Amino acid sequence: MPLDLAHLGPKGTNAETAAIAYADWLQKNHGETVRLLPYPSIAQTLYSAADREVDLAIVPVENSTEGGIAITLDTLWERGNLQIQQELVLPIIHVLLSRGIALEGIKTVYSHPQALGQCQKWLERNLPQARPIASNSTTEAIQFIQQDPTSAAIASPRAAQLYDLPTLATDINDYPDNCTRFWVLGTEPSLQGTHTALAFSVPANVPGALVKPLQVVAERNINLSRIESRPTKRSLGEYLFFMDLESSQTDSRLQDVLTELGNYTEVLKVFGSYFILSLQK
Amino acid sequence: MPLDLAHLGPKGTNAETAAIAYADWLQKNHGETVRLLPYPSIAQTLYSAADREVDLAIVPVENSTEGGIAITLDTLWERGNLQIQQELVLPIIHVLLSRGIALEGIKTVYSHPQALGQCQKWLERNLPQARPIASNSTTEAIQFIQQDPTSAAIASPRAAQLYDLPTLATDINDYPDNCTRFWVLGTEPSLQGTHTALAFSVPANVPGALVKPLQVVAERNINLSRIESRPTKRSLGEYLFFMDLESSQTDSRLQDVLTELGNYTEVLKVFGSYFILSLQK
Repeated sequence: MPLDLAHLGPKGTNAETAAIAYADWLQKNHGETVRLLPYPSIAQTLYSAADREVDLAIVPVENSTEGGIAITLDTLWERGNLQIQQELVLPIIHVLLSRGIALEGIKTVYSHPQALGQCQKWLERNLPQARPIASNSTTEAIQFIQQDPTSAAIASPRAAQLYDLPTLATDINDYPDNCTRFWVLGTEPSLQGTHTALAFSVPANVPGALVKPLQVVAERNINLSRIESRPTKRSLGEYLFFMDLESSQTDSRLQDVLTELGNYTEVLKVFGSYFILSLQK
Repeated sequence: MPLDLAHLGPKGTNAETAAIAYADWLQKNHGETVRLLPYPSIAQTLYSAADREVDLAIVPVENSTEGGIAITLDTLWERGNLQIQQELVLPIIHVLLSRGIALEGIKTVYSHPQALGQCQKWLERNLPQARPIASNSTTEAIQFIQQDPTSAAIASPRAAQLYDLPTLATDINDYPDNCTRFWVLGTEPSLQGTHTALAFSVPANVPGALVKPLQVVAERNINLSRIESRPTKRSLGEYLFFMDLESSQTDSRLQDVLTELGNYTEVLKVFGSYFILSLQK
């Protein structure tokens, strides 16, 4: 029985590239066969794993230029039953594709909002006349340009090959070290790894409410590799904090941290421990 | 000479509603006349004030459902010369507009990504067949539906009136207390207010690097009303932290905090002190 792995589709998205890399790695290291299942949105990709329609889902969680992927963090918190099985870091290269028009003639640029954000300064400098329009994926952007000859799409070099489209410009991301972190999520417990992800809410309007949780972590000399706040959505000024700690749930220091954090947080959720797989350009 | 106030246009955006409210308030309280200037994107609205083409710009900084507005935070940090003159909190109500089609017939929903995000669950429940497409503003979304009879737009009740479009559904935001904070920005120094906004970077990969700055604030019993991380864009795992503190730069406690923060941060930028104006539904 192959493992079912959900990802944002259709063919040619960066999420599919990450899914293929993870499937290869599973095949080589664990002899597992993987079946890739494309979904139309990141939200639906996540729901498929939370509802156990698939074994695993791979979704972006953070980009080095644009920051956290809100839908991933918010869904992890809401569903509560998803655990991180693995992290992949994928270098992201953006290219500008069209059906053959020159730069000067482009009136519209389609892409996923993350890709538009990662190439924003390039677009302002090189295509000031073009209107950016967001699509659900970089591949969907390619479908739009098939219908509109005065448009271009930002997508991956792989998509250019797959859909046989001329490349107008390559490496158009504003920052050279553009990477996206992907999490492989499933409902199996995940206790081992180099990192552990968690999130918590703290009492609102208490001076220093965030200091205690951070102190608990720092006192055990555990590095906080990421912190991100998200609104609770109840009212302005109430936040959840997502943290990645450089430690494993099998480490007693981290176990102590989790116990102590219980005293200083309202709700605390642990999203699993995981290892990181870095992919090359 | 009227004051020039830039905002995200065209007519009917929530940013324009905030701009009108601020202009009314300036007129009533300071006898100032204000001229509203619409810009095509939040980035260009910000640049107009940073480059002194206008006196002031009003931009969203945070929504209670979707969180921080990345382009506003990133531009404040990059430009460095913008100061917050005033905060406005605006309740945001979303309505679904079309040219007259029933819900079942809608194939596409246009809106600003923030509005699509704030109504995401409503869309999943009520329009599962419709494809969301992002536009540069809620008003631009209305322009799109003029060309496509099977589409709908999420916009403000005011836009429905202005553009004389039938409303298919009202109050479609997923969370009832949906509010957006707007900042009025200019290049004048701004030292007085109930709140002060700042941002800083900390040395990367140092356990507890964020604890010290938070302790400095908590020790002076100053409430931290917001904290948000943004990537530095140099490499994964390096962050800037944006904070709003409930104190004024004219308060000696805050002056001490700012001096001490200098010792524990790499780069520290203060974006001004400001008062908050809360608008009614």
